[in-house]
Amino acid sequence: MAVAARAHPALRWDGRVLAILDQTLLPAREHWVELEGAADTTAAIRRLAVRGAPLIGIAAGYGLAMEVARRPGPGPLAEAAALLAGARPTAVNLGRAVERVRAAALAAEPAGMAAAARAEAERIHAEEDAASAAIAAHGADWLAGCRRLVTHCNAGALAAGGTGTALAVVLELHARAPVAVLACETRPLLQGARLTAWELARAGVPHELVVDGAAAGLLRRGAADAVVVGCDRVAANGDVANKVGTYGLALAARAAEVPFVVAGPTSSIDHALPDGDGIVIEERDAEEVRHAGGTLVTPPETQARNPAFDVTPAALVSALVTERGVAAPPDAASIAALLR
Amino acid sequence: MAVAARAHPALRWDGRVLAILDQTLLPAREHWVELEGAADTTAAIRRLAVRGAPLIGIAAGYGLAMEVARRPGPGPLAEAAALLAGARPTAVNLGRAVERVRAAALAAEPAGMAAAARAEAERIHAEEDAASAAIAAHGADWLAGCRRLVTHCNAGALAAGGTGTALAVVLELHARAPVAVLACETRPLLQGARLTAWELARAGVPHELVVDGAAAGLLRRGAADAVVVGCDRVAANGDVANKVGTYGLALAARAAEVPFVVAGPTSSIDHALPDGDGIVIEERDAEEVRHAGGTLVTPPETQARNPAFDVTPAALVSALVTERGVAAPPDAASIAALLR
Repeated sequence: MAVAARAHPALRWDGRVLAILDQTLLPAREHWVELEGAADTTAAIRRLAVRGAPLIGIAAGYGLAMEVARRPGPGPLAEAAALLAGARPTAVNLGRAVERVRAAALAAEPAGMAAAARAEAERIHAEEDAASAAIAAHGADWLAGCRRLVTHCNAGALAAGGTGTALAVVLELHARAPVAVLACETRPLLQGARLTAWELARAGVPHELVVDGAAAGLLRRGAADAVVVGCDRVAANGDVANKVGTYGLALAARAAEVPFVVAGPTSSIDHALPDGDGIVIEERDAEEVRHAGGTLVTPPETQARNPAFDVTPAALVSALVTERGVAAPPDAASIAALLR
Repeated sequence: MAVAARAHPALRWDGRVLAILDQTLLPAREHWVELEGAADTTAAIRRLAVRGAPLIGIAAGYGLAMEVARRPGPGPLAEAAALLAGARPTAVNLGRAVERVRAAALAAEPAGMAAAARAEAERIHAEEDAASAAIAAHGADWLAGCRRLVTHCNAGALAAGGTGTALAVVLELHARAPVAVLACETRPLLQGARLTAWELARAGVPHELVVDGAAAGLLRRGAADAVVVGCDRVAANGDVANKVGTYGLALAARAAEVPFVVAGPTSSIDHALPDGDGIVIEERDAEEVRHAGGTLVTPPETQARNPAFDVTPAALVSALVTERGVAAPPDAASIAALLR
């Protein structure tokens, strides 16, 4: 039975075709798109129809497996792998998943390439599902007693396997005792307002939206017990690249003396990278900033900078929660111990 | 000659009627609205058609003067003063300007009330114009050599007399040697994207817009030499209430070891308030957060919190620049010295 038989709110795999919920249209419309190979999967990742570091890893794995089924052979495989791996630069999961599926296909007999690629893609998906459940449990244990949580961007089922990473922790805490969430809207693309709010509403978790600039002041006024976010790439020393705005939230949590917790699968840890200075920060189209809710909000001549991520130094992170356990605080030693 | 003969991009006083540029429509439309008394001036302040702590002080002064001209006598005066002073809670300039015009009217003979009120309103406007010029000079001296500046919200001519407060400093620096500005968009109402960008574009100052969450990471990456913002109310100890998002920017400036400068007239200093904990933070309509660019961006059931301001502790402020000079760092002693 394909892994895809598991219900996921944003991704369905029937063993042949990958269907994704187009996240750019949420919450107004729930529209599913069928993907059939590397090119359309790459395009879907680029335009953020499917997003979130672990979920783009899963999608890219399926994208490559679908392409291998369509065009077997080492030439098309290399080409498709390069295309998918280059779709976005910051998340490490993407390149890793592509590499795993590529290697599995290459290790197989020519007649078995498609089956091997598909099996590896399904294995990645299954591993991420399992990671989500373990992250939820570890994170809820570590944050026991925290009832008022701040989160940023979206690190739920719409971003990962299972019920997500940071949001999986929130949902598990809520299952143990009711929580309330302050969700940062996450400009420019409003993943907090559109996606986290959609997930929390569906799950029945009390939540309020705030603009990104409001979180620091609310933390200072004692509005939350902890901040929990996901991650796109974690360096070997614990520096964290995550959605732009995360670093400021970490500074505010430290100033307010509340824990700042990063949740993610070990597939997001780049042990080859000594620290966060080496993480490539994706710069996206300035039009995302120049527009809000589809409307141009600046003078026509005003340009914009649009870094999609920022780097939070490990020193500001109270705990890194993974499926293998918690590094608290995260540093080279505690992370290496997790990965052993 | 009426003070209003001076060109101001957002406010025109002809001695009888106050015309304001409706700032809610910028930058798409430059639409002027005529105000004739206390009620319509209060409404314009409430809906942010006219905004910025010093500018709402100026507008409220004229609003009360116009009302006194229409309905002389202590009863209507008290009623109009209470209405205007209650339009918004955070800026101290508003209540002060209203009180000055009220006292001037009451001190006059009955037949001279209107003239006295008008003269006092014009005096407030002239003082704010002069304060802007002095702030520009003091701030540019203090920030000599800084060429890459971050600002938040709008503290230009659209917010104050003359060319503004923080933006007056930026313009003065630019007049001495070219600068480049990173302007935070300032959700929810995008005063940075709409108003600061509009002013900088008109003034020919190179600038780029960023989402509020991006500023901290850019400061960490060395993108700016200083942060300059305005203020809505400064406590006697130097704690600063300003547009929501300011506090997070101050934390990021401190972490990046760049100066964090607050510019404002002494009319924004509330010497009766020992510290920022006593500042009332206006909570505005949640719909401002639930919408972006006029579009609903959340699930229908998702609610929002919308504090319009936050408080930055004096310890994070490198310098408070006023028309009377600079308190660096601002504290009870340095501020008291300025006010003497």
